[in-house]
Amino acid sequence: MTEAEQAAAALEGLPVEPCNAADYERLARESLSAGAYGYFAGGAGDEYTLRDNVDAYTRWRLRPRALVDVSEATTATSVLGTEVSMPLLVAPVAFQRMAHPDGEAGMARAAAAAGTIMVLSTLATATPAEVAAAAPGAPRWFQLYCFRDRGVTRALIDQAEEAGFGAIALTVDAPRLGRRERDLRTGFVIPADVTVPSFAAAAGRSTDFTPADMFGLMDPSVGWDDLEELASGSSLPVLVKGILTAEDAALACEHGAAGVVVSNHGGRQLDGATATIDALPEVVDAVEGRVEVLVDGGIRRGGDVVKALALGARAVLAGRAPLWGLAARGEQGALAVLELLREEIELAQVLVGCPTPESLSRAHVARAAV
Amino acid sequence: MTEAEQAAAALEGLPVEPCNAADYERLARESLSAGAYGYFAGGAGDEYTLRDNVDAYTRWRLRPRALVDVSEATTATSVLGTEVSMPLLVAPVAFQRMAHPDGEAGMARAAAAAGTIMVLSTLATATPAEVAAAAPGAPRWFQLYCFRDRGVTRALIDQAEEAGFGAIALTVDAPRLGRRERDLRTGFVIPADVTVPSFAAAAGRSTDFTPADMFGLMDPSVGWDDLEELASGSSLPVLVKGILTAEDAALACEHGAAGVVVSNHGGRQLDGATATIDALPEVVDAVEGRVEVLVDGGIRRGGDVVKALALGARAVLAGRAPLWGLAARGEQGALAVLELLREEIELAQVLVGCPTPESLSRAHVARAAV
Amino acid sequence: MTEAEQAAAALEGLPVEPCNAADYERLARESLSAGAYGYFAGGAGDEYTLRDNVDAYTRWRLRPRALVDVSEATTATSVLGTEVSMPLLVAPVAFQRMAHPDGEAGMARAAAAAGTIMVLSTLATATPAEVAAAAPGAPRWFQLYCFRDRGVTRALIDQAEEAGFGAIALTVDAPRLGRRERDLRTGFVIPADVTVPSFAAAAGRSTDFTPADMFGLMDPSVGWDDLEELASGSSLPVLVKGILTAEDAALACEHGAAGVVVSNHGGRQLDGATATIDALPEVVDAVEGRVEVLVDGGIRRGGDVVKALALGARAVLAGRAPLWGLAARGEQGALAVLELLREEIELAQVLVGCPTPESLSRAHVARAAV
Amino acid sequence: MTEAEQAAAALEGLPVEPCNAADYERLARESLSAGAYGYFAGGAGDEYTLRDNVDAYTRWRLRPRALVDVSEATTATSVLGTEVSMPLLVAPVAFQRMAHPDGEAGMARAAAAAGTIMVLSTLATATPAEVAAAAPGAPRWFQLYCFRDRGVTRALIDQAEEAGFGAIALTVDAPRLGRRERDLRTGFVIPADVTVPSFAAAAGRSTDFTPADMFGLMDPSVGWDDLEELASGSSLPVLVKGILTAEDAALACEHGAAGVVVSNHGGRQLDGATATIDALPEVVDAVEGRVEVLVDGGIRRGGDVVKALALGARAVLAGRAPLWGLAARGEQGALAVLELLREEIELAQVLVGCPTPESLSRAHVARAAV
Repeated sequence: MTEAEQAAAALEGLPVEPCNAADYERLARESLSAGAYGYFAGGAGDEYTLRDNVDAYTRWRLRPRALVDVSEATTATSVLGTEVSMPLLVAPVAFQRMAHPDGEAGMARAAAAAGTIMVLSTLATATPAEVAAAAPGAPRWFQLYCFRDRGVTRALIDQAEEAGFGAIALTVDAPRLGRRERDLRTGFVIPADVTVPSFAAAAGRSTDFTPADMFGLMDPSVGWDDLEELASGSSLPVLVKGILTAEDAALACEHGAAGVVVSNHGGRQLDGATATIDALPEVVDAVEGRVEVLVDGGIRRGGDVVKALALGARAVLAGRAPLWGLAARGEQGALAVLELLREEIELAQVLVGCPTPESLSRAHVARAAV
Repeated sequence: MTEAEQAAAALEGLPVEPCNAADYERLARESLSAGAYGYFAGGAGDEYTLRDNVDAYTRWRLRPRALVDVSEATTATSVLGTEVSMPLLVAPVAFQRMAHPDGEAGMARAAAAAGTIMVLSTLATATPAEVAAAAPGAPRWFQLYCFRDRGVTRALIDQAEEAGFGAIALTVDAPRLGRRERDLRTGFVIPADVTVPSFAAAAGRSTDFTPADMFGLMDPSVGWDDLEELASGSSLPVLVKGILTAEDAALACEHGAAGVVVSNHGGRQLDGATATIDALPEVVDAVEGRVEVLVDGGIRRGGDVVKALALGARAVLAGRAPLWGLAARGEQGALAVLELLREEIELAQVLVGCPTPESLSRAHVARAAV
Repeated sequence: MTEAEQAAAALEGLPVEPCNAADYERLARESLSAGAYGYFAGGAGDEYTLRDNVDAYTRWRLRPRALVDVSEATTATSVLGTEVSMPLLVAPVAFQRMAHPDGEAGMARAAAAAGTIMVLSTLATATPAEVAAAAPGAPRWFQLYCFRDRGVTRALIDQAEEAGFGAIALTVDAPRLGRRERDLRTGFVIPADVTVPSFAAAAGRSTDFTPADMFGLMDPSVGWDDLEELASGSSLPVLVKGILTAEDAALACEHGAAGVVVSNHGGRQLDGATATIDALPEVVDAVEGRVEVLVDGGIRRGGDVVKALALGARAVLAGRAPLWGLAARGEQGALAVLELLREEIELAQVLVGCPTPESLSRAHVARAAV
Repeated sequence: MTEAEQAAAALEGLPVEPCNAADYERLARESLSAGAYGYFAGGAGDEYTLRDNVDAYTRWRLRPRALVDVSEATTATSVLGTEVSMPLLVAPVAFQRMAHPDGEAGMARAAAAAGTIMVLSTLATATPAEVAAAAPGAPRWFQLYCFRDRGVTRALIDQAEEAGFGAIALTVDAPRLGRRERDLRTGFVIPADVTVPSFAAAAGRSTDFTPADMFGLMDPSVGWDDLEELASGSSLPVLVKGILTAEDAALACEHGAAGVVVSNHGGRQLDGATATIDALPEVVDAVEGRVEVLVDGGIRRGGDVVKALALGARAVLAGRAPLWGLAARGEQGALAVLELLREEIELAQVLVGCPTPESLSRAHVARAAV
């Protein structure tokens, strides 16, 4: 249903209960300020990559197999050895309390209830400890930026390790903050009451600074040796998040990465960068099974997840989709989106003839005809 | 003529007598409730496959041959040995009484008058016997779902055999019901007075249950062995409906199918699945002439049929097109649409230089330039 | 300038003197009845081929060469040995008096003044003799349909020969009349006072019959032998108009054709047929220089002509473009359009680095990037 | 943000400070007459090439490399041995006083302040001496047309040499003026007070003549020998501006060019010509490193520049972008646009993992998936 059809339906007095992630975005847009909505929804520059992340999925077609026994279909799988209810994790998103008072704690509870992993942002409005307390038994990962002051980086890792986080996802596509023009147009600034206590503590700073300030502290000279040092200096596996090329995928494997996340930061950093699902195949080929490959960006439907797995991803990360749930209805909204996506994944698996995520293969997808 | 031009024409007081299948859809939309129209017109998910079924035909071009003697042009052909007036059959569509009181009986009479085969749905609002009585001498096929309770399946086959149906089309793309969001938005449910007596009788159930209930009874564990058993246990030839890959086409041939229907259930099951006309060539290649190949989905014009035949189909099935005729004007409307399509097929054959359906070949089509 | 911008310009009181063929179409649309405009502008079926004829030109790019001496640039060339001022002829269009009282006589004078050949339609509202009298010294060709009654065909040829026509263009893409739904919607019929005296005389009929009637007299059994007979039975060279494939191009050469016109009847016959400029290369290759190749359909700009010549055409035929001129402003309008096109061709030649039409080559075009 | 969103933002009272080149175009459109805006913004014919120059950049994707040390990133580079602050020069644009009273002098000061080269048009409204005086120490090049009267050409070169210009860019894509229909529609003529003193002096003419008159004085018979003569007869290096093919690129190298500018005159000459970024690769291949290759047309973003450099350009030229700045806000506006572009280039370099312009390579781009 297009937005226009939605509007028409609403005019006719029909109930328009959200029935997919796009519906939750519509609700979120209504409940957020223009600035906050723009911050979460927007991308860099002309937003080509933002849009292409989504569009690129439509350039792949599913090749369903018939008469396969799917009576015992399940979306359950594992990622880096951790059992999850589905091959979809919650991607790191900064400033979740700006979306809803439930914030990262609410998101953590939703992820736990949905049976999957939440990845907490360095720029979270809740500390790793708070998130751990919100969903004690649930698996969780920590997204990390590398700072000029290695002490800050180390302090963040320490927080994560102490709070029982199971992996580190090192973001490597943000040596500098992308240019997000929606924010310039709305004059958006992070509200004063939206603070990032964990990062502030690690940095020994008060909390009244902007994302640009924070990015100013990050280290633009980080190299592959730093990854190796980080990987060997932590008890946690380190995934490299922000890989778009075969070359870097191979380097990640060679320098100690436990996994690779094909990502362009949700289209928020380099406009014009390859859509993630288009970059996935070359990354998978280059990795040659040495580590697990994940992908984020543009995931709106269960069918997208199935395409990504068929192209070789172990799982996907979704950021905006559960965030729209959180923004619209707090923790329950985030959970509702995650449950919807899990159901869509299971249905797509069943209809493509794959009882398990592992049974998806390259033969289940093909480029769309042009 | 676009919808806008249609509207403009109507405003100018011009007569807008329906002159093609799209016109009948417009009339049907006016005469049906939003819910019923959405049920028949809609597809799964974001309806990419629904739209792509239609769009994909525009990505093929016809290569017409000149100075061929087409003075004796005919659309008459045969399908599985049955003579038909044209290479277009009426596809199975559930709940036809919801479209018009004439229902499946009216459709059967229209198909008979048009000289072609009607395929009756398992979820029909008329029994096989009623349909047979409505058009006694006409050829008819029966569409079958496979149920967990094999007795239900067997009872349905028995009904079809007793009523003189000539073939079974076993649907294999619906181990679970697709997610049709139009229905969720309109809050559509099958009206209480729309019953499926044949299926109810076979299942030993009263008639107040939903499509989801019915799909719940279907067997998601059906495999190729079941096809073999079905094919060998019935006097009727069994076509496998819902094939989109070369792999499954070959398996169907090996397991006793008498024919293959390239279908994605009209875009109503797996959104993102290949458009049927794009899947047809690989299926035809894999079948290697062992059985007849049919195709459905996206057929709106005689030229579409000609393209399908040139790509190797023996015939096509059209569901929505005659249904819009039925919805708009009952049996006469359905017949009008079938006659229009037959005329369009004949005209397209003549203009492409093929006096018979059999004279169409791969050389009569080419991919559109991009 | 889009139509919307045009409208805006007009609102601002700016002079909007027609400056290209599209402008003349706009004026023609204003001066014609909806029915007559639809008849001339429309195509068959969904008008895919009608639109694609135009769009296909945009899928080719020009590769201009620099620092070529173009000080003596000329568009003058020859077609079948006849000198013309430019590689663009006036295509046959029926019923030109329905566009403007000047009719075919006016068009003939315009073509003569522009220095090019007019091709007169069998279904003209002026006789060959009248057209010859209107522009005595000018070169002219005659478009021919082949009728069941070969006497009719012969009588038409006789008229053309007597009136000094220099070639016959035999239309081979119309064994039956295409389905033009615009006419069905507007309820268009040829007005009673629009008569085709030449054809009526040849057929020994009064003039009150429809295009469908006329097409009913045509012979759908014509074959390549008939072409051979026609070619050998006339003193005039015979071009075959309506070729879209390499196969037919070769057959035309083998059966006595003096030239081939790549044409799909302006998108008015088989909807879905290849765009003419996309079919041109394979025809040129198949002809191997044995005869001259012309192309029509979709010509709106001088740059289109230059692309066609670069792809191997000797010249193009334009039907609608000069017709819009005729409809808008009679003979002077037709001449204005022809002059505009000649200027555009010359400018495109100069800018692509080709002082003569003959200097255009395959290296001056390339497929557009996708 | 689309124009519609812009408008919406403005309605909501949000500050809409220009934040990219497109914003400056919007402001320029408001401050210029329709005729002047159309003159600067427009292209030839249907403006396919005008649009395609921009669109073509979206058909390339960036392949960013991670974990590269970009702490010392710089956009500084050299072009023909001249140090510049960034790989973007100001392209020649005629009649800049028509955009703003600051005219070419203002543009020269803006370019100097931005640290880059301005290329002055033959049809400038300021003389080379005035431009030199406006920005004494800054590097500057002179764009040259070749006139029938070689004395005019020579006089222009003399002016440029005396005023300390460092190179000549000989335009070779304008043997005749392109057909710019926007000007015909707005009835645009160069205002009487917009004069071209340098060209008038060289031509020994008063200043009341039109662009068409001026183009009438140009020599359409110029050939490669003339380039050779020009190159050997001047102390300045001569770049050939207006090359779109490998063939001409090779010829330019063989006939003494010091550089090649891949250009289609901003889409203002031959409509249908290849988009410049699509032509760049074949030119780079043909040049084989013998001379530097520049490219103009369609540059709107820093990411475009990065793509061009990755495809082998030494630098790009931007005409309209700084002109919109000049038109909107005079010299300061032009400088603001150049600074914005420099910042965007640096950001794109950093995010693609290239600390210097020279580190960009073919591996940093790929065709977009279709």
